[in-house]
Formats: sequence, C-alpha cells, structure tokens
Amino acid sequence: MNDASFDDDSPSPARSEPGEVGLVEPRDFVSSAPFTFDNGQSIPGFTLRYETYGRLNAARDNAVLICHALSGDHHCAGIHSLSDKKPGWWNNLIGPGKAVDTNKFFVLCCNVIGGCQGSSGPSSIDPRTGRPYGITFPAVTIRDMVRTQKLWLDSLGVASLYAVIGGSMGGMQVLQWALEYPAFVKRALAMATTAREGAQAIAFNEVGRQAILQDPEWNHGIYPKNGGPRVGLAIARMMAHITYLSDASMDRKFGRKAVRPRSASGSGSQHSALNSQLSAPSDSMEGLDAVAPAATFDVRFEVESYLRYQGQSFINRFDANSYLYITRALDQFDLAATHGSLEKAFAGVEASTLVVGFTSDWLFPPDQNRDIALALLRAGKRVSYAELSTDLGHDSFLLESPQLYDLVRGFLD
Amino acid sequence: MNDASFDDDSPSPARSEPGEVGLVEPRDFVSSAPFTFDNGQSIPGFTLRYETYGRLNAARDNAVLICHALSGDHHCAGIHSLSDKKPGWWNNLIGPGKAVDTNKFFVLCCNVIGGCQGSSGPSSIDPRTGRPYGITFPAVTIRDMVRTQKLWLDSLGVASLYAVIGGSMGGMQVLQWALEYPAFVKRALAMATTAREGAQAIAFNEVGRQAILQDPEWNHGIYPKNGGPRVGLAIARMMAHITYLSDASMDRKFGRKAVRPRSASGSGSQHSALNSQLSAPSDSMEGLDAVAPAATFDVRFEVESYLRYQGQSFINRFDANSYLYITRALDQFDLAATHGSLEKAFAGVEASTLVVGFTSDWLFPPDQNRDIALALLRAGKRVSYAELSTDLGHDSFLLESPQLYDLVRGFLD
Repeated sequence: MNDASFDDDSPSPARSEPGEVGLVEPRDFVSSAPFTFDNGQSIPGFTLRYETYGRLNAARDNAVLICHALSGDHHCAGIHSLSDKKPGWWNNLIGPGKAVDTNKFFVLCCNVIGGCQGSSGPSSIDPRTGRPYGITFPAVTIRDMVRTQKLWLDSLGVASLYAVIGGSMGGMQVLQWALEYPAFVKRALAMATTAREGAQAIAFNEVGRQAILQDPEWNHGIYPKNGGPRVGLAIARMMAHITYLSDASMDRKFGRKAVRPRSASGSGSQHSALNSQLSAPSDSMEGLDAVAPAATFDVRFEVESYLRYQGQSFINRFDANSYLYITRALDQFDLAATHGSLEKAFAGVEASTLVVGFTSDWLFPPDQNRDIALALLRAGKRVSYAELSTDLGHDSFLLESPQLYDLVRGFLD
Repeated sequence: MNDASFDDDSPSPARSEPGEVGLVEPRDFVSSAPFTFDNGQSIPGFTLRYETYGRLNAARDNAVLICHALSGDHHCAGIHSLSDKKPGWWNNLIGPGKAVDTNKFFVLCCNVIGGCQGSSGPSSIDPRTGRPYGITFPAVTIRDMVRTQKLWLDSLGVASLYAVIGGSMGGMQVLQWALEYPAFVKRALAMATTAREGAQAIAFNEVGRQAILQDPEWNHGIYPKNGGPRVGLAIARMMAHITYLSDASMDRKFGRKAVRPRSASGSGSQHSALNSQLSAPSDSMEGLDAVAPAATFDVRFEVESYLRYQGQSFINRFDANSYLYITRALDQFDLAATHGSLEKAFAGVEASTLVVGFTSDWLFPPDQNRDIALALLRAGKRVSYAELSTDLGHDSFLLESPQLYDLVRGFLD
C-alpha cells in the first residue's frame, strides 16, 4: 500500500469512538516538479497539506474527495488532539456510519493551492529567493486548485474518485473536477455554489480586498508572519461573514439583544476580551475602549460582539494575501465564459451529478445552483437537483441538516 | 413674511424653467440657545443648513418637510449654479407640477444635526474650545434630529406640517415627527424604512464603523478637514452601497462585465482616474497600480470600478465622524423598545399616514415597512400601506418611479 493508508501506522480511533473519525493528523504531499498555473507562471514545486479518513480499498476506487470553501482547510473531520474541542469543519457529515461513511469510503481533503494552512501559497517561502512569495505567487484559479489535487491523488494511488463533494468554492472545484477529469470522477456533488458569481458577490469580495489592500500594513504583500494587514483582513471577514448568514438567522440568533454593560470587574459581553484584542492588538490599531469620553461607538449589540469575534479569530488563522488570491479565484471562475456556454463546459462530463441549493442562501442563491443542474440536463447528463428549505443562509451546507445527510447518503449509495 | 420666502429676493427660476425648481441656495438656521440631546449632554447652540422651494402661504400651513437618509443632505431639489449638472437628490420628486408640487407647497429640507453638510456635527467647531467637536459631540438620535428640526420650523413661522416625507433614515424621522408632534403633523409618508433595524442591518453598519475606527488616521476622531480615515470611510461606503442596490439590479447594470484593459494612453475604465485616487490619494494609502508585477488585484470588473468610484466620491463629501454618529442613530432607533410597543409608540399620532415598502429592498425589507403600517392600524390610526414591485433594492425610493410619484401625489391631494 502507499502512504494513503495511514491507519496502518496508528491505532484506529474510528472504532474506539463509534460515529467519530477521532484523532487525525495532517500530512503533506510535496511535489518537486514545477507546476505551471493557468496564467502561464510557474513555481518550482509545491506542497498540499491534507488529511484522510478511512482506508483506500484494494481496487483503489472508494475515494471521496472533499473540497473546502474560501476560509476552510484540509481539516474537515476528526480532532487533532484529545483536548481538541472543535472537530473538523464537516465533522457532522463525515465519519463512521455518517452520510460520508468512513467505514466504506477513503475520504480525503487538502488545503487548496494558494491557501495558508500548510499548502503552498503567498505566505510560503519561494525557494528561489528564500523569502515568502507574497504577491509574486502566481494568480490561482479554481482549475489550478483541481489540477494540483489530481497530482496529489495520483501520488496516493487513487485510481478514480467514487465522489467529489464540496460547497461554495468547494462546489466550484467539484464542477471543475467533473469536466477536467471526466473519466476519473464517478459522482460529483456540488452545493451552495455557482458556475459564476454575480455582480453582488464580486462586489462584496472587492470591498474585502480593498480593506486589505488599503491597510498600510499590507505593504504590497510583504509583511511578517502574524503581522500584516490584520485590521483590513478582520474587516473583510466581518463583512463576508454577514453574507454567509441570513437576515432571519441573524435576527433569531442576535436580534437587537444588547450586550451587558461592562462591570468594574471587567466582565460583560462573552467576547469582550476578544473585542479588546480586535480593538487594540497593536499600536497601529486604536482601541475603542480608550475612547471613554463619548464611548458612543463601543459594542452595543450582541451581533457586533459576535462579528468582532469572527474578525479576530480569522486574523489569527488566515493569511491576508491568501484571502486576496482565493477571492480572486472565486470571482474569475466562469465556466460559461471559458467554454462558450455552460452546456459546452459540461459536454464531456461522465459523472452522475447532484446539485443542492439552499433557499435562504443569498450569496450563491438557489437560482444559480439550479442553473448548473439545468445546464447539465441540457447537456444530456445524469443530474439531480435538490433545493433545501432553510433559513440559515449560505452556511446552511455546513450546519446540522438531516435532510442534507439523507441526500448525500442516497447519492453515494 | 419671514426669511422662509427667499423667492422674494431672487428671480423665480421655477417659472422660467417649467417643471424644475431651478437655482436654489442653502441658508442657515442658527440657534444660540443651548440644546440638550437625548443622552443628557448639551451644546451651547447649533446650526441647521437648509433649503426651501416654493412659498409659505398666508395660513402658514402648506409646508412639506423632506427628511434625508444617511448620506443625504439639505439639497434635495434644484441646482446650485447654472453649470450644476447634478440636481438635488430628490429632484425627480420635487418641483413645480411634480409629485411634491412646489407651486402648491412650501418644501423644506435641512441637513440633520450630527451631519457634515453645514449643520452642527462632529466636524463643527466647539465654541468652548475653538476646535472641532470630534467625538466630544453628544451622541445623536433620530429624536434629536426631529427636535432640532422643530426649532428651525418654528423660527420660520411654519404653523403646521402639511406633510413630512422621507425614505430610509428619513422615514425614521417621519415616524418620530408623527409621534413627537402629533398636532403639528397632518400627513406622514415614510418609505423604505423601519421602526427598528434587524441584526443584519446593524451588522453592516458595525463593519462600516469598524473600518473607520480601526483606520489609524481616525486618531480618536481628531483629524484635519479633508484628512482623517479616508480609507476606512471609503470601505464603509463601498460596502454600504452594495446594501442599497439589489442582486438583480447589480447584475443588470454590471453583470460580470470586465473593464477594458488600460491602454498606453491611459484610457480604460471610465472611472480609472478615480480608481487611482482611491488607490493612492495619500502616502498612507498604497496604490494598487503600483503593484505592477502581479497586478492580480487591479480592477477586473466594472462593478469594482463603480464601487471604488462610490467610495472615492463619498470621502470627498462626507465626514467620517458624522458617519459614525449617524449610523449609531440608525442602529439605536427602536420605537417599540422606547415606548413598550409599536402600537403604544403610535398611540398619540394624529397624522394620516402612508407607508411604502419596496419588494427588492433587502436592507429595510417590505415586512418591516408593513409592520409599521399594521401597528398604526392596530393603534386605530388612518394608515395606508403600499408595496411597490421593483428590483432596484433599497434605493428604489430615490429612483424614477411613476408609481411612486402617483402614490405621493395622491397622498398629498
């Protein structure tokens, strides 16, 4: 066997903790061959950080590839240590006996090229200079993500993909996989996604990029690790996070609930410590708390506190340049423009496909998901479309949903 | 007559240019009496800049007050010079023979307290210190806006308001007027508004405020005129502008249209000059254009160019501290919380009311407008509700709409 069957080397936590993938550890695929991006630029080699769950079977045809969204990573299931309170981002979907059943499937997920969670991207060291690539890293496309993933799967000995599954930007990768490697992909499941963003989605991404680019700390993309345009990145994330939710879900979760006034002992909002960090993590960020005289702009509502927490936690785990690169990949993705029409784009697809839209998703609305299914249908492909009624917005695909689990399970059976 | 009839002093352009208000000039109401804000703080006096169109009649009962929205001002109709290409912001609604007919009505509009277009606000000089108030200016509420407007109307000899009309934040003022001065207000027309913002609207305002507050140039609100957190304010405006439009209208207007690549002669996007300004108006803002090597993040889509233009033009006319104050006034406005319930808030209203929602408005959705009308109905008031089918989003109330004109005309007749 190849290194894909890493369970050989370790106890099998899936069996000791039923229903959960359990302890997992990331690995690196290191390609020392030059890779040429869609834009023609090359890098001398690259790394993809990945995780796998379950075992590749003897026929090497039970692999299920999971593709992550903008702010996601390779850690989609299991925990990294026994004290790890937060499992991977799709842990509710993936595991022994779950919808993506690791007792049956060899499940894989890697951090995309251009990312910042271990895969090569702008924050990686360019071996030719010894310094981080920064914005000399080539522009990344969804197709670049998929082509590097294919090299990685080949290295693992995966003969074909039983399925490729993803939501949002992950769904774009699913579509690209199905048309790029038609014989390799048996089933393709794209959800909460689009074959091309509309003007509004581009607009939100652009404001986020501007918040980063105009932050003086961005400095043309040259900044120290754990430094850089933290303010701009936090602003970008706070705004983007609103687009992942829905008006209804925000009203249910926060409404107009006020934060408790801070007492002398310093208690108050549950996120107050984090607010302070966002307010004044460095000398260049003026602390709101310092503005005591008027204090008009301090946190008043729970939703503000929540957003500041989202911004704060994001800047501690994400690279601003990666955010620029990946949002550009999202905006530039346009299968119809690239292939003449969506039907033409899908002409060679061999996979069975399932497309899932969510009624309350206003970032990549149901219409845009339905359009993908209709184009596949017009191209004469096997396709199903499901529209799930939720009020949780774009992030619906990540949240608890027995309906979604049933759909996924049925599609994989 | 009082100074309200400023047509006495100047030729009457309305008659020489049928259908248009024509040349207008702003005036100042200067109150030298201290004004105490809702939060208990006082200022020694204040100024409201205003414009009027038409004449106050002998009975002094034909006044129609127009209330502006967040980024609006007193200049709602007419032009300031013959070379002025852009008339006031509601010029399509206001003028001789128009829906708000200046042949019949004495139309008034003032810049709100807390604003930055001539009325007292954070950028005004505090006479006690000789320096701009900055964030020592008292927190402003919608009710403060309305109470200062009442003092101004009293000074003009206006005996009652034939009508008060406004959209968005203007609509909040309309509601406040109707309940604060019930005998004074005969008709109240609120559109594209809400009696209290939901969590999503608060969230967007909060991200905008953070973009300003975290801009190092904000400097606790102390910055030179034409300086300050221009980047933060531009980011806030770009984001907010998306919420004023709709997905459909943005797709129709921009879709995924790419900007033309810049030629050697420097032509390109129609907004390219402005883009450059936004990119590098000062040393502290890194120019995107300077990032030639990768240039991955330069303007690609028309919608990006448009948004940068919106950001750029806004920072040249708006004060960042005013933006903080006025968005806080919006967020804090909550008639139900203040009065126990919306019905109780409206218990004393005497005006005939009309509430207008717009189907594509996702900032202050139709539901929130309908809720106002329903509460007025439950409180036993004369109220009509109209829902106009548009796909232009929140800004629908500002745009050409014969349907809206008919509604307004009918309501005023």
